[in-house]
Amino acid sequence: MLSTRGYAAMTAKAALQPFVFERRDLGPHDVLIAITHCGICHTDIHQARDEWGGSIFPMVPGHEIVGTITQIGSAVRQFSIGETAGVGCFVDSCRTCSACREGLEQYCEAGMLLTYSGRDKDGKPTQGGYSTQIVVDENYVLRIPSALSPAGTAPLLCAGITTYSPLRHWGVGKYHKLAVVGLGGLGHMAVKIANALGTEVTVLSTSERKRKDADRLGAFDFAITSQPETFTRLQRRFDFILDTVSAPHDYNAYVNLLRTDGTMILVGAPDKPTPLAPFPLILHRRSIAGSVIGGIRETQEMLDFCATHKIESDIELIPIQQVNEAYERVLRGDVRFRFVIDLESMK
Amino acid sequence: MLSTRGYAAMTAKAALQPFVFERRDLGPHDVLIAITHCGICHTDIHQARDEWGGSIFPMVPGHEIVGTITQIGSAVRQFSIGETAGVGCFVDSCRTCSACREGLEQYCEAGMLLTYSGRDKDGKPTQGGYSTQIVVDENYVLRIPSALSPAGTAPLLCAGITTYSPLRHWGVGKYHKLAVVGLGGLGHMAVKIANALGTEVTVLSTSERKRKDADRLGAFDFAITSQPETFTRLQRRFDFILDTVSAPHDYNAYVNLLRTDGTMILVGAPDKPTPLAPFPLILHRRSIAGSVIGGIRETQEMLDFCATHKIESDIELIPIQQVNEAYERVLRGDVRFRFVIDLESMK
Repeated sequence: MLSTRGYAAMTAKAALQPFVFERRDLGPHDVLIAITHCGICHTDIHQARDEWGGSIFPMVPGHEIVGTITQIGSAVRQFSIGETAGVGCFVDSCRTCSACREGLEQYCEAGMLLTYSGRDKDGKPTQGGYSTQIVVDENYVLRIPSALSPAGTAPLLCAGITTYSPLRHWGVGKYHKLAVVGLGGLGHMAVKIANALGTEVTVLSTSERKRKDADRLGAFDFAITSQPETFTRLQRRFDFILDTVSAPHDYNAYVNLLRTDGTMILVGAPDKPTPLAPFPLILHRRSIAGSVIGGIRETQEMLDFCATHKIESDIELIPIQQVNEAYERVLRGDVRFRFVIDLESMK
Repeated sequence: MLSTRGYAAMTAKAALQPFVFERRDLGPHDVLIAITHCGICHTDIHQARDEWGGSIFPMVPGHEIVGTITQIGSAVRQFSIGETAGVGCFVDSCRTCSACREGLEQYCEAGMLLTYSGRDKDGKPTQGGYSTQIVVDENYVLRIPSALSPAGTAPLLCAGITTYSPLRHWGVGKYHKLAVVGLGGLGHMAVKIANALGTEVTVLSTSERKRKDADRLGAFDFAITSQPETFTRLQRRFDFILDTVSAPHDYNAYVNLLRTDGTMILVGAPDKPTPLAPFPLILHRRSIAGSVIGGIRETQEMLDFCATHKIESDIELIPIQQVNEAYERVLRGDVRFRFVIDLESMK
């Protein structure tokens, strides 16, 4: 077994603290990655505090992992020692259901094996990227293009693919008008990716403070959602809305901003149901859909797309000793736009 | 002006009563239809009782109209005197917006002109098919194929197209599994049409009494929605759900019956918002969509499709003097599956 150091939540109420645990020895298809960077996703906080239920403790969070391959199993064919590699939100799946066979492992019928707070085949809990190293089957590892910096790439493994996948699935592109709701970790990636796809992007935010950021990121328009005028001015304007907000908000107001046949795609997940009025859907054949991350093939495609278009996440690099403070700042929306832990700080 | 007899709600609280009113003289593009049959749609009741707001009184309801053309305007080219013709939920639209130009008049940006309780260009309220005759621009009139009976065809103009249009728009066909929620006027048409499209249909109903009907209509399966077991047995089973129910119900329970990438289509419209949980959408990339009736071109296509497949509505023919009693029976769900008024009774 491989002794590994990380930061863990020992219980749902606890701050994260140093924690030593074991990774499995490499199987023939495994690679060992020395982690250099790991992004902090809002999901980490939900999970570390057991806000969605089902969390497993002690828990080492982190599913936006980049590092260097330092060892490979005897049968590994896709990776070599020394390569920069990434791991996202899952590290395995059943591999046999129709979703897995189509490369949609995120919709695996047996459920994907989450990178942390999952239960591996041997029954042991998985542990995430706030740690020095990770052992992962090569089929669930991503290649990080050399044009991308490891730190700015880590958040692509969750925030990037979460926004890229629905934009591609629904064919968002040139000639479309897209609203991005919320300009946080997910939202700022959505603006960058949609821009690269040639889409006209409007940022809808609760906060006037985000106007400059929206401008700088290349948004075509910006509107404040606390002003009722926004919802009259932009009525029936958008082909698509990508909703990244995980706090409860009124879906119906946003649905009315869609054109006929428009689709609002939820990637943020409020933990409580939101009242949905059927008429705004019915009278304009609109849809509300959801989407979660992406499969391995599509995540690799996203990384290559980002390399081509020079897209990285805007980040604030922190030592792991500041993780609890970073959590508080994420909850206050005080981050532009993603904290990334520099695992050098664990040495 | 053409003096016309019908039945009207004089106010939102009133029972329908005999009413004499005037239709416009024929313009060059108008046809005059002597109405022989008019279906009773649940919407008629909502509107006659002003349950959705905005109703105009006195109101002659009725938007499932079939009759015989008895007079045509000087420029009419598509219809001849003596032909059997139909009128559905709208009698005009702006004709210039992109929706109208695409034949999607039901999504007209200026709003379609409703067959009744609408406001015509001259400011006068439109009046519906519980009456002896109607004047309509030929571009908003349907041709009734001779293979179809006028009485059994009247409900196709609303219940038929309301279910046909989304089934076609979303490409429901062979190899798909469809659940139809609610076996009333809309639901029984959905079963017939989906059967003709080669789809495997499951009827979901609150009422065990509907099991035999579902069987007779050709449904593959039937399940009672008041039994929790239904929602475990059928979990992730359907590619599509067509929800025809206009009473409030738990959308989330139904969403969980969809496969990954499945779509639940609302054509019934509860007048109150329903709590929507985002996770069931997000975790399987499911959608909830809405759809309303269909355009003129698609309605004609539906009528021709029904003629080919020998599809009519199951009806109970009544004289207009029984319309108030019929309303009460509709509200009790005591109709298999559509009341159609025989306008002979007005003579």
